[in-house]
Formats: sequence, structure tokens, C-alpha cells
Amino acid sequence: MSGQFVVVEGLEGAGKSTVLSVIEEYLIKKICSVMKTREPGGTALAEEIRSLLLKHDANEVIVPEAELLLMYASRVQHIELKIKPALQQGQWVLCDRFALSSFAYQGGGRNLSMSTLQQVHDAVVQGFSPNLTFYLDIDPLLGLERAKRRGELDRIEQEKVDFFIRAREVYLEHAHSDPTVILINAEQSMEKVANDVCQQLDKVIL
Amino acid sequence: MSGQFVVVEGLEGAGKSTVLSVIEEYLIKKICSVMKTREPGGTALAEEIRSLLLKHDANEVIVPEAELLLMYASRVQHIELKIKPALQQGQWVLCDRFALSSFAYQGGGRNLSMSTLQQVHDAVVQGFSPNLTFYLDIDPLLGLERAKRRGELDRIEQEKVDFFIRAREVYLEHAHSDPTVILINAEQSMEKVANDVCQQLDKVIL
Repeated sequence: MSGQFVVVEGLEGAGKSTVLSVIEEYLIKKICSVMKTREPGGTALAEEIRSLLLKHDANEVIVPEAELLLMYASRVQHIELKIKPALQQGQWVLCDRFALSSFAYQGGGRNLSMSTLQQVHDAVVQGFSPNLTFYLDIDPLLGLERAKRRGELDRIEQEKVDFFIRAREVYLEHAHSDPTVILINAEQSMEKVANDVCQQLDKVIL
Repeated sequence: MSGQFVVVEGLEGAGKSTVLSVIEEYLIKKICSVMKTREPGGTALAEEIRSLLLKHDANEVIVPEAELLLMYASRVQHIELKIKPALQQGQWVLCDRFALSSFAYQGGGRNLSMSTLQQVHDAVVQGFSPNLTFYLDIDPLLGLERAKRRGELDRIEQEKVDFFIRAREVYLEHAHSDPTVILINAEQSMEKVANDVCQQLDKVIL
């Protein structure tokens, strides 16, 4: 069977890294190999854009629209130079965040209008989308608590809790309306989360 | 009178720098002060984006859509943090390139569809535009010849002549259809060019 594009989404502290490792191991066991990547990032230029986006600069705020465009600039590089070529070779691609993060964070979190977002998305992404997205749902307060224990927070992780409450609302809307977005209860034990994820994965592997 | 936003546009080697200096001196003489700036660039983050855009990286091409989004990300920072605040204080703003460069270079040069361009432009710029644009028209071969004499060429200046021929076509279309875009024959002597520019400037100053 041909390669599939699988994405893991969720707020800070939802357990994305662990779930990504679970999926990677499971896919390697079942279908041999998988290309693991992340957003923003994934190519040299996209990683440079990531640094601009995540670093703290007390002297210059990033205008929400500029943040959105930088996210999409890195996304376009990533799609065209890395994700599509891998899929075309029949490889599976596993990605830490994708366009849904922009809808949640720049749309929900930053309050950019969904029509602005959709306009930029449609102008440059042109219908390309994941085959399957796992959205790890967690209460923002619990997630931020976990993220803080992990160490220093980046520019976006330092936003107030309201930002993440709005982001979660957008995630939930998509999880409820888009059949390719699978909601996983990330407040369960990691064993249960891993089990739920692998069960869903089986549906696309078989 | 309130501040005006004046832009100088044109292909490489058209004489933008000289004309910018002419305008700056003329405005200082007539209305005391002017804020001179440039695109891509104008803020610390926008200048970092500029470096990503203009440097040569043999290992990674920049996808045209990503180039467009990076240009607009830097433009949004520039508009919101530098240009609009200056205009609101009644200052004149003089800028080396603006959105018309994206239409000429990413639209004409890179062959991105004008609807993609317009979609991104409308999504984030929302009707903000220069009061006056001087387009310095020059034969691309002559312009490139001049640019080469100036020294090492950046990533975009290294494009083939066809790229600049297409860019010029877009510039000319706008100069013919948009009354705020003034076509200046940049193949004339610099004295004549300066004279033409100052005559036009008088119309908005008086």
C-alpha cells in the first residue's frame, strides 16, 4: 500500500512526543519504515524560520498575520521538498503538528479570522492534507503544568491560559467535524493513550 | 499636511538608490523630515527574513509560494510596526520597494498566479497602499549590466533575464492601470530622471 501522511496535534504538555514515538515504533514494526518530521521545521530553511518564530525578542512583537505567514512559509517548504517527495516514494510520513496547529494557535489563540486563515491556506496549500490526524485532547491548565515541568517555555508556550483555551476550542471543532481528525483523550494513562492510537492506526494500515 | 507613503520600484540597476536619495533630499528641503526604509526589511525581524530570502543556499531551493509568504511576513511586520506608526504621527515615509515588487517578482518573475498573490495580499495587507509609487522603467538587459558592475549579485539578482522581462511586464501593467504608479524613464540621464521625479513629487507636496 502507498505511503500515508499521519499527524499528531495537541496543546503543550498533551504528550505529543511520547505518542509520536509510540506511532513510530508501531509503524516500523508493521510496515518497516517511517519518516518522522516536525512543524514548524523539517527543512534547513524551515528550521531557520522556526527559530525566528520561537525565540524571545523583547524588542519586537510578532504581528499575528506575520506569524501566520512565517508558519505557512515553513510549511510550504516542508510539503514541497520533504513530505510530498517521501509520499511519492511510497514512504509513510509522521509529523509533529501541521496546518491544524495554525488554525488552533493563530486562528483560535491569536484571534485571527478564520477567513484570513482559510485564504492563506487555500492560496498556498491547495488541497494537500493529512490522511490521519491524532488530536491529543487535554485540559490546557493540566497541559501547561506538564509543559512547565519539562523546562523553559518558548515564545508561544509562554502565552496566557486563555490563548490555549481558545486553541483547544478550534481543535475540538475540527475533531468533531473532520472524520480524518481522531480525538484521543490525553488525560488517560499513557498506556491507554498508546492503545487507543494503535487501534486507530490499524484501521489505516490494514 | 499629513504624512504620505512614497515608494520607489524597479528592476535591478534601474537607479533606485540614487532616486531614493534625490527624493529624500528634496523632501527634507520641502517638508523637513522623512523616514527612509526598505523592503524586504525595515524591522529587526523583517531584516532577518530578508537575509533568509537573499542568501544563496545551494542545498535548498526556496519554493515560490514560500518566497511570497516570507516577503509578506516581513511586509506585515514593516507595515504594522514601522510604516503605519510613522504615518499616524504625520511623518512622510519613503520606501525602497513594496507590494508591487511581489507582484512583479513572485508573480511575473516566478510565474505565481496573480490570484494566489492577490489572495495572500488581501488576506494580510487589507487595503493599505502607497500614496505614490515611482516605477523606474529600464530595459532588463541594461539594468542587469549596471547591477553587475555594482558587485556581487544576491539570490534574486542572479535569475536569468527572462525572469526580469516578465517582472517588467507586470510593472508596466500596473504603471498603465494604476494612477498612483508613476512611470519614470530610467534610461535617461540621472539629471532628467531626478527632474521628472521632483516634478511629480511637487503635485503631492503642494
